[in-house]
Amino acid sequence: MPTISLRGQLMPPSPIRKLVPFSEAAKKRGVHVYHLNIGQPDIETPKPILDAVRHADFKILEYSHSAGNESYRRKLVTYYERFGISLTPQQIIVTTGGSEAIVFAFMACLDPGDEVIIPEPFYANYNGFAVEAEISIKTITSSIESGFALPAMEAFEKAITPKTKAILICNPNNPTGYLYSKAEMEVLRQLCLKHNLFLFSDEAYREFCYSGTHFSAMNLENMEEHVILMDTISKRYSACGGRIGAFVTKNQVVLDAAMKFAQARLSPPSFAQIAGEAAVDLPGDYFNGIKAEYLSRRDLLVKLMNEIPGVFCPNPGGAFYAMARLPIDDSDKFCQWMLESFEYEQQTVMMAPGTGFYATAGLGKNEVRLAYVLNLKDIASAMTCLKKALEVYPGRTTA
Amino acid sequence: MPTISLRGQLMPPSPIRKLVPFSEAAKKRGVHVYHLNIGQPDIETPKPILDAVRHADFKILEYSHSAGNESYRRKLVTYYERFGISLTPQQIIVTTGGSEAIVFAFMACLDPGDEVIIPEPFYANYNGFAVEAEISIKTITSSIESGFALPAMEAFEKAITPKTKAILICNPNNPTGYLYSKAEMEVLRQLCLKHNLFLFSDEAYREFCYSGTHFSAMNLENMEEHVILMDTISKRYSACGGRIGAFVTKNQVVLDAAMKFAQARLSPPSFAQIAGEAAVDLPGDYFNGIKAEYLSRRDLLVKLMNEIPGVFCPNPGGAFYAMARLPIDDSDKFCQWMLESFEYEQQTVMMAPGTGFYATAGLGKNEVRLAYVLNLKDIASAMTCLKKALEVYPGRTTA
Repeated sequence: MPTISLRGQLMPPSPIRKLVPFSEAAKKRGVHVYHLNIGQPDIETPKPILDAVRHADFKILEYSHSAGNESYRRKLVTYYERFGISLTPQQIIVTTGGSEAIVFAFMACLDPGDEVIIPEPFYANYNGFAVEAEISIKTITSSIESGFALPAMEAFEKAITPKTKAILICNPNNPTGYLYSKAEMEVLRQLCLKHNLFLFSDEAYREFCYSGTHFSAMNLENMEEHVILMDTISKRYSACGGRIGAFVTKNQVVLDAAMKFAQARLSPPSFAQIAGEAAVDLPGDYFNGIKAEYLSRRDLLVKLMNEIPGVFCPNPGGAFYAMARLPIDDSDKFCQWMLESFEYEQQTVMMAPGTGFYATAGLGKNEVRLAYVLNLKDIASAMTCLKKALEVYPGRTTA
Repeated sequence: MPTISLRGQLMPPSPIRKLVPFSEAAKKRGVHVYHLNIGQPDIETPKPILDAVRHADFKILEYSHSAGNESYRRKLVTYYERFGISLTPQQIIVTTGGSEAIVFAFMACLDPGDEVIIPEPFYANYNGFAVEAEISIKTITSSIESGFALPAMEAFEKAITPKTKAILICNPNNPTGYLYSKAEMEVLRQLCLKHNLFLFSDEAYREFCYSGTHFSAMNLENMEEHVILMDTISKRYSACGGRIGAFVTKNQVVLDAAMKFAQARLSPPSFAQIAGEAAVDLPGDYFNGIKAEYLSRRDLLVKLMNEIPGVFCPNPGGAFYAMARLPIDDSDKFCQWMLESFEYEQQTVMMAPGTGFYATAGLGKNEVRLAYVLNLKDIASAMTCLKKALEVYPGRTTA
């Protein structure tokens, strides 16, 4: 039997999805599972964008342009204008989800062995894309005490080596919900200019900011050659299954390279490009309603979490995640135990263990990520469950 | 300014799409361009599968399972059963186009520097995926005189090195249209068993066989651990824009590795999975009509091509491509000249230069690939154009 590749062996399994069999078993036992583990919003996809697909009138489901339909890219230009980001349609490559934008950035800018610096905790799938691209992720740890603010410039300086080619941030952040300030973005700008680095900016949650306003990396001055924006419609319009994202940069050489990767895979999905195009025309107040909903969920979740003895949950400024510290020995064990061995009034909670978001061994063992993608009532019930669970968990560490 | 990666520089541009600016300029001059250059069928996408998407009733466009919706994978099991291929839904990973199935196979089975043997001419985008995966393509040349039959076993034996991990075939073949016989598949089987190689089989055109019947690599005996099927709905149902394919194998270790790559990118597109699922229920005679249409096109194209003085066009057994030898100095120059400097009754023809399908320098310079994705009348007009063009082309080599 031929053997698989080393990278096939090294490729990390999804830390979020590995608990799925335990959750399925719990459901089979009749236990209701509150899913705070995954970034699949419960918000309905706006009807106008689903209707655009339903009513699209064409006879052949053709390949689109490899960079995406020009009509969609022109619409995206108007979308970005709202944030003071001035682009041409040629500076946008429509991708298959935000995932592909990340892969294009890694492939076009880094060679095997090159390094990208990412503040940890970070979105776990960056690990997988790094294995695919054979590049190396170097992390700088942000602390829960500071609410996961950007680490100090000195920490970056210490981590930069001759192999460092880029810094990657997710803003607002998954998994921490932290919203980087303009001053923090300025620190990144100085670092990138001084050390001639790319700045990869994952802004999937741009619209979901509750404390402060979003400052896009695309708005940093004199950084046109450095910044690559990795974007997606998944969370913005509750359209995760569409698999439509965008790779955006003003660096023409990077664009030309990324286009070759785009051409090899022919085109991004056609149906969802129709949805994405319609989404840009949603009424201006669309996000107000969604934001108000997420804000009330955040406020409730953070309040109830911090009321549980021994729990510390910083107040996240954006996205729909919170990272909390629990009085537990091991978040992987605890999350599995919640599904396997605990129930309260036939209910339990599924969370993402903190360890999956750290590269440094040992970190995140007493942390979990909570996605507030459930309604207020369910969040309250889930918090009650979690409180009861922490009272009886055998691996509880403090009173 | 930070520099792009070496692989970003090495990544080949699409040899098929590089002529697009010249074709656009011709159209602006009022010249009608017959597109025989690209595998975008003109056949209408079956209405029932577009209707399935239009009438799908859901409120949230959610992520699907990373391996694709289970309902779709169960349907695919019944689809493959029609070809005597017995599978479980767990042996199928739904991919984003056939392209992603190729990437998963390269990533899961080969490490940087490993070699895959491919008969040339071959589908040009394999080159791009090889650059992404940092693997090496080694070719064995098939000859136009034999109609591009599988090269002799000895040619493979000579090409195999300690770094060889797989053989890749496309059957029926893009770009040659050649349909590999059962005897040729047996040769590949013996090679893979003897040298412990994977057999990657791209069967995108399975249904389009006009001379002889298709023998799938999945039906080779005792090859369960070796064969990976790379599939797509793009050509089968004229649904190229859906971006839905499949990675299929009975090798559990490979499946487990590929699933990790699938999890990293979360899920394949949801809309097109609905289309793909409906496609399996198309009436049994659906392909008969399509095949009859392609067969009459092939017969006309091959006949008219061989009537042009100095042209040789073997009769392809499947797919919807033909590779022809022309009396020209350089197929890149000729194809560009057709668009830039030639017109006959305000018409011209766009073809794919043969050079893009060969890895060996110098080969394909007097060959072009023709995709018969136009109706009979247009094919006849295109052939008249080509005949007239060859009469006046300054780089014509023989009488």
